Amino acid sequence: MADLVHHRVVVISTGDEIITGQLIDTNSAYIADGCVRAGILPVEHRSIPDELSALVDAFRAAASRAPLVIISGGLGPTDGDLTRQALAEVLSEELVIDGAARAAISDILVRRGRPMTARQERQALRPRSATCLPNQLGTAPGLHARASINGAAVDFFCLPGPPGELRPMFEREVEPRLRPPPGTSIITRLLHIVGVAEADCVSRLGDLTRRDGSPLVGITASGGILTVRIRCEGAFSREAANALVDQAESRARAELGDHLFASGDGPGARRLVQTLLGLLKESGQTLAVVESCTGGMLGQFITDIPGSSAAFLGGYQTYANTMKESLGVDPADLRTFGAVSPQVARGMAEAGLVRSGADWCLAVTGIAGPEGGTDTKPVGTVHIGLARRSAPTHTRRFLFTGDRQDVRARSCVSAMAMLYFALRHHPIAEPRLLWQVG
Amino acid sequence: MADLVHHRVVVISTGDEIITGQLIDTNSAYIADGCVRAGILPVEHRSIPDELSALVDAFRAAASRAPLVIISGGLGPTDGDLTRQALAEVLSEELVIDGAARAAISDILVRRGRPMTARQERQALRPRSATCLPNQLGTAPGLHARASINGAAVDFFCLPGPPGELRPMFEREVEPRLRPPPGTSIITRLLHIVGVAEADCVSRLGDLTRRDGSPLVGITASGGILTVRIRCEGAFSREAANALVDQAESRARAELGDHLFASGDGPGARRLVQTLLGLLKESGQTLAVVESCTGGMLGQFITDIPGSSAAFLGGYQTYANTMKESLGVDPADLRTFGAVSPQVARGMAEAGLVRSGADWCLAVTGIAGPEGGTDTKPVGTVHIGLARRSAPTHTRRFLFTGDRQDVRARSCVSAMAMLYFALRHHPIAEPRLLWQVG
Repeated sequence: MADLVHHRVVVISTGDEIITGQLIDTNSAYIADGCVRAGILPVEHRSIPDELSALVDAFRAAASRAPLVIISGGLGPTDGDLTRQALAEVLSEELVIDGAARAAISDILVRRGRPMTARQERQALRPRSATCLPNQLGTAPGLHARASINGAAVDFFCLPGPPGELRPMFEREVEPRLRPPPGTSIITRLLHIVGVAEADCVSRLGDLTRRDGSPLVGITASGGILTVRIRCEGAFSREAANALVDQAESRARAELGDHLFASGDGPGARRLVQTLLGLLKESGQTLAVVESCTGGMLGQFITDIPGSSAAFLGGYQTYANTMKESLGVDPADLRTFGAVSPQVARGMAEAGLVRSGADWCLAVTGIAGPEGGTDTKPVGTVHIGLARRSAPTHTRRFLFTGDRQDVRARSCVSAMAMLYFALRHHPIAEPRLLWQVG
Repeated sequence: MADLVHHRVVVISTGDEIITGQLIDTNSAYIADGCVRAGILPVEHRSIPDELSALVDAFRAAASRAPLVIISGGLGPTDGDLTRQALAEVLSEELVIDGAARAAISDILVRRGRPMTARQERQALRPRSATCLPNQLGTAPGLHARASINGAAVDFFCLPGPPGELRPMFEREVEPRLRPPPGTSIITRLLHIVGVAEADCVSRLGDLTRRDGSPLVGITASGGILTVRIRCEGAFSREAANALVDQAESRARAELGDHLFASGDGPGARRLVQTLLGLLKESGQTLAVVESCTGGMLGQFITDIPGSSAAFLGGYQTYANTMKESLGVDPADLRTFGAVSPQVARGMAEAGLVRSGADWCLAVTGIAGPEGGTDTKPVGTVHIGLARRSAPTHTRRFLFTGDRQDVRARSCVSAMAMLYFALRHHPIAEPRLLWQVG
């Protein structure tokens, strides 16, 4: 069959747990984003229950809308996993055992010390003309099949539901097989910004944010970080599109200075950690943390980045006051001012600095809620301390909005922002951050 | 028009940011979950770009599949907000200004010190026969319209995209208008299971998992925890449906014993933490953690639960070896066996127990990757130690699959599972857990 141009894609997720709202579908966004990067425009996402007829109808309907259909889920060993059967029906083919896939499954099971059962073997079934896509990280292989539906050729890719298995399979097996239309490009670039309010950012960017502009510039605020999205799409060469995006980026940089801490993909908070780790490594400095209300979240954010060990020593989860005292926080401060106070934030940061031997120490103590708020210290009150060798310790008070999860995540981002501007050699108290009240 | 029975619902989200994968759609899961709770079965989710014809087609197609269609997004003031126009086209009605909605918008703008523009006023437009749904938290009102499409009556609800505005509007304005079929019920219950492989769980549950069974039982595996979904739907009273679900649950409990650690809503890992904290509080015991490769994630999991301070003291992020030594791990063990070894996991757990004064201490040390693997210690190798007052320390070796994030999350769940079975008084080395190799 002649090679096929993928000018559009339909993204399908399967599973009763998604349809009934018990699980949020993150795979479709990941797949759609990957297709857009490749220059293929998604026209629809659909989520379908674990019912053979519903899956078959959805696969056929998708094939009538786009020459590329990417499906997640339904490849596991249970009776509810029906993607293989549905694809076979759409292809009007029987299912056959794929020898290599069967061997790969049995290898994994052997490594896990588990037997190969008929149920497990089922995962090696594929429609006769389909190709199994190796799964480096789980038992269920993916599938690729080229179908001809009402005379139109369509590529179907079926990927496992667990994101940890789907993502590497998409990169290794699907991306190389994508065929975007030649001569058109979609380029998207993200700029990550901290320490500026959204309205201020909009006015600094001026006419860059006009809705009818090209490239199109959009702003998303999330947890104290602004992400500016520059998107250029149309009949450009990749080079021309990139040049337009570069122009917009340098204009934004000129307006935003150090507030623009990173450019490129990924969540803003993750990019902020990467920037911090880069600045620390450049200057050969190290960081430790002391966490009360965040209970380990700040350390988790940091160590989520491979190679963080080059600058991050570790820290202390001083959740109980006894843990704060045994770290070296003055019991008198805890008695007099309470655990949620600038004095204790300072004590935590300084004790952590000494104990860890790090060059910098961030300490977070606050009330994440929903319980524990008072008139003088309402839920969302958080004190963050930043201690540095041979320099006075700096603390700030925040009043974060949102639920427990929001307060904790915003505490981590604000702590990292304090360190970021310090490493950028800004005056220690500047700039004032979102939600900061003291 | 006679009142309408909502036996099925189609959930639609709109927006280029969703279609292109720049934003994950959380609204559809929220809406679907609310409908299931009310006894209405979702049959499909669709995400549609900001294009009038695509929206009109999707609304019509949805109406042919269900008497209830709930749409999120596209109600704002920008040119990309087309839900109103699409609904008007489906109804074959003109758009008219809703006086009350206009007044509410201008009140909000006055409070924000901003002028009422033509753009803002657009949000007060509704199809002539539609009702505006008040928005307590934003300018864009929702819409409700009753349509008759090919002779079938359909209720359309249009809600604003921002979850903070959508959720209260769904509760206040949509839920009271939902009409599940009388005399029929949908009851869904989740059972959370650990320490059993998916295939083993399926065979233990036997014919409970038959696709044609009632109640319908489905299984989702996520990060070492299995969630069994029992769903009973049909012409039952709520009581009868509940009784059938109870029966299925007790059969599952009989087959799975202590492996079934929680029943009810919420992610499995979160429910495991809640179960652990409950068992610790009952017995008046406390927990501390020592984290190397998880870098704080285990503490974050635990402190994500309000009130965890009653049993969780805190812990140590001994990411660097210097931090392990200063906690009290024997430097000789680090030199001889390396940081990723049963000896160091044991040393971390025992040092953490002594330092914190807790009754239990969990320690995690491993190679989360992607770098740092060796032939003898490949990426995914993790040693977990469980120390207890006046009892020998127990360690296990795991070889986790997945990416860095998966390895870390699975390490946390496995550590919690070890403690869970210990608190349930199982022999310390039992049961063998998923991914355990020693």
